[in-house]
Parts: sequence; C-alpha cells; structure tokens
Amino acid sequence: MIATAKSTLDELSTFVRETAMLESIQSLLEWDERTKMPIQAGEYRAEQITYLSGMIHQRRTDPRIGQWLDELAASPLADDPHSDIGTTVRQMRRDYDRRTRLPQSLVEALTRQSVLGQQAWVKAREENDFLAFRPHLEEMIRLKKEQAAAIGFRDQPYDALLDEYEPGESTERVAAILAALREQLSPLVAEVVATGKRAPVEILRREFPTSSQESFGRGVAARIGFSFDRGRLDVTHHPFCSGMGPHDCRITTRYDERFFPSAFFGILHEAGHGIYDQGLRSEQYGLPPGSYVSLGIHESQSRLWENFVGRNYSFWRHFFPQAQATFPSALEGVRLEEFYFAINQVQPSLIRVEADEATYNLHIIIRFELEQSLIRDDLLVADLPTAWRDKYREYLGIDACDDADGVLQDIHWSAGLFGYFPTYALGNLYAAQFYDAADRQLGGLDGLFAQGEFEPLLLWLRHNIHQQGQCYTPAELALRVSGQPLTPAALIRHLRQKLAPLYGIRCG
Amino acid sequence: MIATAKSTLDELSTFVRETAMLESIQSLLEWDERTKMPIQAGEYRAEQITYLSGMIHQRRTDPRIGQWLDELAASPLADDPHSDIGTTVRQMRRDYDRRTRLPQSLVEALTRQSVLGQQAWVKAREENDFLAFRPHLEEMIRLKKEQAAAIGFRDQPYDALLDEYEPGESTERVAAILAALREQLSPLVAEVVATGKRAPVEILRREFPTSSQESFGRGVAARIGFSFDRGRLDVTHHPFCSGMGPHDCRITTRYDERFFPSAFFGILHEAGHGIYDQGLRSEQYGLPPGSYVSLGIHESQSRLWENFVGRNYSFWRHFFPQAQATFPSALEGVRLEEFYFAINQVQPSLIRVEADEATYNLHIIIRFELEQSLIRDDLLVADLPTAWRDKYREYLGIDACDDADGVLQDIHWSAGLFGYFPTYALGNLYAAQFYDAADRQLGGLDGLFAQGEFEPLLLWLRHNIHQQGQCYTPAELALRVSGQPLTPAALIRHLRQKLAPLYGIRCG
Repeated sequence: MIATAKSTLDELSTFVRETAMLESIQSLLEWDERTKMPIQAGEYRAEQITYLSGMIHQRRTDPRIGQWLDELAASPLADDPHSDIGTTVRQMRRDYDRRTRLPQSLVEALTRQSVLGQQAWVKAREENDFLAFRPHLEEMIRLKKEQAAAIGFRDQPYDALLDEYEPGESTERVAAILAALREQLSPLVAEVVATGKRAPVEILRREFPTSSQESFGRGVAARIGFSFDRGRLDVTHHPFCSGMGPHDCRITTRYDERFFPSAFFGILHEAGHGIYDQGLRSEQYGLPPGSYVSLGIHESQSRLWENFVGRNYSFWRHFFPQAQATFPSALEGVRLEEFYFAINQVQPSLIRVEADEATYNLHIIIRFELEQSLIRDDLLVADLPTAWRDKYREYLGIDACDDADGVLQDIHWSAGLFGYFPTYALGNLYAAQFYDAADRQLGGLDGLFAQGEFEPLLLWLRHNIHQQGQCYTPAELALRVSGQPLTPAALIRHLRQKLAPLYGIRCG
Repeated sequence: MIATAKSTLDELSTFVRETAMLESIQSLLEWDERTKMPIQAGEYRAEQITYLSGMIHQRRTDPRIGQWLDELAASPLADDPHSDIGTTVRQMRRDYDRRTRLPQSLVEALTRQSVLGQQAWVKAREENDFLAFRPHLEEMIRLKKEQAAAIGFRDQPYDALLDEYEPGESTERVAAILAALREQLSPLVAEVVATGKRAPVEILRREFPTSSQESFGRGVAARIGFSFDRGRLDVTHHPFCSGMGPHDCRITTRYDERFFPSAFFGILHEAGHGIYDQGLRSEQYGLPPGSYVSLGIHESQSRLWENFVGRNYSFWRHFFPQAQATFPSALEGVRLEEFYFAINQVQPSLIRVEADEATYNLHIIIRFELEQSLIRDDLLVADLPTAWRDKYREYLGIDACDDADGVLQDIHWSAGLFGYFPTYALGNLYAAQFYDAADRQLGGLDGLFAQGEFEPLLLWLRHNIHQQGQCYTPAELALRVSGQPLTPAALIRHLRQKLAPLYGIRCG
C-alpha cells in the first residue's frame, strides 16, 4: 500500500515538476518580453506564450492528477498535513479543484474580458472617461461572481476570490483586521498632518546619476542578501520580480535621475521579493513545499526589506557615508537626521504607488472596502466614482481631482484582480509582526544594522518563512512565527515609534 | 483529391509551425544562457533545454509526418518542386527521413560522445595533450561512420555528413572545387609573403574604447540593413547569431579595447548572418520556404558583408571620417590608404579564427582534406597531428608549434561536426560569386558604397537569396543567381584585384 502510494507520489511529482519547468520557461519568455525583446517581436512572443499557456493549462487540469490525489489521500503517507508529502497532496488538491471547477467557457470569457478591460482602461484613464470603462467593469464583476460561484465559498462570493491570493483567509477576518487598522491609522495620519511639519524632501530631488544609483542599489541589494549569482537586476518601466528556476530570480527597477527614493526603495522592495524566492527550498522547486505561500506573505518580504530595514535609522547609520560618497553633489553637507526624516515623510496623496509607508495602507483599505461592496452588490459601478471620492475624503482627508487619478488609477479591476488589493496591506501587517518577532528573538536588530550585519535577519527569515513553503497557511505561519494571530498592533506601534520623534506626535 | 491534400497540407503546416515555435523558445533559452543568465542557473537551464529538445525530437519524428508526406506526394499539389508546397513536401521529407533513419540508441550515443568529447577536448587543449583526446576522436569517428551508414549516401560515407549542412552537395564536387581553390590560393599567398611587405597593422592596436566601438559597430550594422527593431546586439565570449522568431534575430560580439578589427568585423559578420535571417519570408517562418538553405549560403551572407563590403575601399571612403571622429586618439592623422591596407593584411598564421580573408580558406581546406581521410579510413587518428603539421607547412608555409594550437585548436571534431568545415570555404566562394553578380547587375557597387548607399545590395540579396528560402538547393541557387556553377574564379579574382595594388603582386 505504502509502496504503491510512493510510486503514485513519484508520478505526480514528476508530472508537476515538468509542468513547473514549462512555467519557468514561460516566465523567461515574459521577462525577456519586458526587458530585452526587440519591439517587432511582440506578436510572435504572444503566440509563443499562448501556446505554452495552453500546454500548461492542459497539464494542470489533467484528470490523472485527480486520480493520483485520490490514491494518495487514501494512503497514510499524507497523514501529517504539514509534512512535505501532506503539503503536496493538500495544495495540489486545492489547485486542481479550483482549476477544474471552472468551466472552459468561463476561463475563456475571463481571459477575453481581461484583455478587453485592460485596453478599455488604458484609454479611459488617458481620457479621464469613467463612463467608457463602466460596462467593462460591470461585465468583469459579473464574471467574477460567476467564477466565485463555480469555485464555491464559505460565507460570501468574495471569499472565493480572496482565497486565490491568500489561501485559507476569509473576508470576515480580513475585513475585521483592516477595519481595526483603519481605525488606528486614519487618526495617526491626521495627527501628523495637524503638526504642519514638513520633511526636507527637497534633498531627495537633487541630481542622482543613474549609473551611481544602479551601483549603489546593486551593492545594497547584495549586502542584504539578494544573490546576483542566482539573479539579475534590469530596467523596466513597471518594476517587477520574476522567478524562472530554482536558482534564477530576476528583478527590475526604473531610475529617476532627480528623485533618489524611487529606484533605491524600488530595488529593496523587489530584492525583498527576490530574497524570498531565492530562499525557497530549491530541491522542492515547482512543488508546494518549495513554493511561496501567498501574495500577502510575499509582499511582507518586500515590505520588510524596503520599509522596516531600508527606512530604518540604524540601516542608514551604516550606509549613509557610502551614499554621500556615491552622490557627493546631492548629499554633501546633508545630515543623516535630515536624510532620515526625508525618506520617512508622511503625507496624504492621491496616488497609491507613490504613497508613503503610513498612508499606503489607507489607499488599500479604500479599494478593499469598495471591491467587497461591488462583489456583494451593495454598490453599483455607476456609483463607484462618488464612493471613491467619499472614502478618500474620509480616510485620507483629501479630494480626488478627477477619475483618471481617482477610481481609474489602478489596472487591477480591469484585469479581474479582485481580492488582490488586500494582500498589499496584509503584507505590511505581516512584515511588522515578523520584524517585531525577529527583533526580539535576535536581541535587537538596530545594533546589528548599525554594524552592517544583515545576515542574522536573513537567516531568520530563511528558516522561519522562506523554507516553510506552503507547509502552513499564511495565518498559521504568522501564529507560529510571532506567537499571535495577525493584528494591526505591531504596524501601528512601529509607525508611532518612528513618527513620534520626527513629527512630535504621541508615541503610543 | 486536391481538397483532401489541401487539408493534409494545413495539418502538416500547423504541426511544423508549432514545432518551430518550440524550437524558437529553445533558442531564447540558449541565447539567454549565453548572454544574461545568472551563473548558478545553468543546471536547471540544461534541464529545461533537454526537456524541450525531447519534445521537439518526438515531434520531428512523429509518424504522422510520414503519413502526411505520403499523402501529399501522391497529390498534384506538390508537382512543382520549387513552389512553396513542393519545397515544403520535399524538404520535410528529407528532414523526416534523415531523422527517422537514425536508431534512438545511435542518437543517444552521439549526444553522449559529443558531451564527453567536448569536455575531453577542453582539457586536452589546455594541457596540449593530444593522446588524451585521441580515444574520444576515434570513438566519434566510429559513430559518425555509423550515422552515415544509417542515413545512406551516394558514393562515400562523407557524403551523408556533408549533406546535413550543405543539402544536395557531394564530396566529389566540393573536393574538386576546394582543390582548385587551393591550387590558386596557395601560390597567391606565397607571392604575398615573398614581397616581404608589411601592412601598418599597428594603427589597429591602439586605444579603441569599448563604448565607442559599440556605438560605431551598431551604427554601421544598422546602416547596412540589420534591423534593431527586429534584433539585438549583446556581448559574449564566443560571438554568434541566433534567430528566435520571424522578427527576432540576436547577434553578439566581443570587444578588445586594443584591437579594432575583432569587434567591428565580428559585428559585420554576425550582422550578415542576421540580415539573412531577417530577410527570410516571415509568413513562412518555421517552414522550408522560410528557412535558410544551407550553412554555406548562410556563411556567404556573413562573409559578403564582412569582407566584400566591410573591407572594401569605397565602404571606408564613406565611413572612415566617422571612424576618425569616433576614435580620435587612435585614428587622427591616419590616412585612409594606410587604414585600408591594415585591415586587408595577408599573413599566414596558425589560428583559423584569426586568419585573414585570403589565408582563411587554406585553414579550411586542410581540415576538409583531413576529415575526409579520417572518415574514409585513409588516415589513422594516431597520425593526425603529423598530417596536420605537414599540410600547414605545405599550404601555408608555417610550422605548427604544438598540438594545442594545431590539431586541437577547433571544437568541431570533438562535437561530431564532420562535414561542417567545408561550408566556411563554400561560404567565401558563394559570397564572391554573388558579390560579382550583384556588382554587374547593379552597375557597380563601389560607386554606391562611396555614397553610403547599401540598400540596393540589401534588396538584391533579399530578392535573389533570402526570400528563396529552401526552394532551390545551394548549387541551384548559385547557378540561378550568378549564371554559372560554383568555382573559385570570382574569389581568386577578387583577392588578386585587391592585393595587387597593396602588395605589388600580379593582378590576374
């Protein structure tokens, strides 16, 4: 019985590893398209990707997978749900069921509407014309509800959508956590604004030559643990991180010669994603124990290095002299304290991707609340722009001037990515809670950073998070690592402790 | 009958196009491996390529292809052998037969021996130890004879090997052409050497900054017709050209800051290959009418742009002022005539890849004669080093100092590439004959080049060669384009006309 189950497991694993190999090849095709491909090669590249996608879809929904999983479920091999085998069986079953429950016609309708919707969105945004985009959004919402019904859910359709990105999470729990976050964050931001104090951000808008930004960013990324023997850094308009093999993870950034933070913190952010990818167990590549567990946990790794490490005072005690030597004309005579204040400015603004560490989460909460209402039919698409404006006024205290920089600013909804936004805020909350735990367990990270010691934190993350793969759900992982369920407490504490001395607000 | 044949043709074409899509993806994997891939990703990349190769091999030998071809052969659709359909049926049959005639065990033995042989060759070359390489070469020759026997041949086993790279050619014919070439070239080189005259090559060994070499080379490549909207130029140690789609052809080069010719003529050479690739009919991509016809013809296109255009006096009348402006410290005060003499130096030397336009062919002829003898069992591997030295003394008038720079200098034999070397010399002969025809038909290329006009030649090559795909054999193509079968006459005439004024040898 065990022997048969063992050979079934081998068959399943080989099949899944081969599928992962095709996916890794697809990732290279996509990476190349975005970084290196000659302009006229686009059409054929789309054909190549479509062809591979078809093969991959066929393999992911191959009935043999269902049979193998049935056999394995009946064997004692998979009894321990957190073992590699238990994890493989559980997560493969989840993936197989989610995929095979969708009728082919719905998959095709979603793909088509995603393409049409994104095209319409680009145009609508350029022309500030929400009405032109409205029917596409309505159709997409209709399809997403159909998708949720096909997959199945516990309480409400949004559960099925959220579960795609954050396995095991429920709308109810996430809504409670993010509502608590909003209740503490919105007043915090208001307190900062009320001080009228402004960070000296003009020092970040001086001349920062691209080649120096690149060498500095590359050097710091390597120091915190991104391996360039197993990765690359290139330039793209929209930065991203893409893994394409157990030892091949590539990140990108974009450089603004007159604004230091965009490339530097962008590199730290993508390097954080890359460090997670590089920390996965390579011998389990393509199988659940060697795969990232959720978008929220992935984002926690990028945010941890970008914000908790990269905007930390001790980090800059170590790196600021090197930054001054690299950018003498911009940073000569600038004091560390000024620079530190500048990179930690808090200022409500309209655009999510340019938002600071504190206000960013309010942008997310607005989108999360609105998309829940849309899926729940509590809000009509026709009323979305007004609802958007109302929430920006209420949570961030600002008025959206137009729809282009308002409800049309993100690509996500046009592409059908409902349930995706909350993972950004969950990432920040996980990051805070993980950082807190690491700080306690490693006896104070500030002291290490000031010495340029980043390896203890890296190894802690490797052991506690990266190497766990999908053996635990995100919620279980948070509980195991930090000893408590996810709450906003660590993030709020972190922000207040940082902002109190800078802005003179209360500390707790 | 026609309707059925038409639908059979559609099935075949779709199947072959999909296979070509997988091959184009494999080309991207290989290009990336050689240009961009992080060092530690190599092992998984090998797995990806092996996996794809397996899929491709299976498709190329799929029994359905044989059935489709049988059906089509019986239909009048393919009656015209030079039509697209006739060409597709004929060339697919050739490919299918060559592949299916090889037993799987022999394919695997050849692959294995190629890997082992190359590893042994690298080590043997480093250690100047021919004896260590000898058993690998003996085994490879044994396998190549087995391969030739399995494929079948007209007169002698070498025919089957040559035919792989130069379809339709016979050993007898190529041997006659290259013997005639040697008989005229060897005395020509001896005449040059006897003058004792030396070209002022030291001006090419000054400071040529890499970034300037790159921008200059890129600019010239674009001017002669290599499209960067459909291609790229990158850096690798071993330069190459690789197509990976109907609008995606990528070339590479390497820069030597202290030697101008290596990157510049390297770029022209690879751009020449690339221009052929970019000139193939894109709507026939992956099918025989849209594929290159032979290695010899491919090489003719690289050599034509590298040597016949790139080392032409009128070409430099146009580009030399720009070269001087780009490399002021190296070329200021240098006269065009000196520069032209320097890039056209003729000087017997030991290393094939560094040889000049004239002596290069003697290096090839030596290898061609030796490999024929090896396959024919007229020469034992044990006697190869001595035979090599004898021929270098006889044809080039120089003594090979050791085996590392002698019989061990090329990778080809270790990898099983027998029949490949002669295509280099055939390429030079085709180039001369094509250039001659274009010069006559376009009313003098020198006048055009001096004006910076390269498009007439480009369009002539597009029409007469690139767009013909595999509709004619290389020999038929030469006859159609130049009005006569391939002979050494055009190349010898070209060399004598160029070298007579430079070295003071007789002109014809």
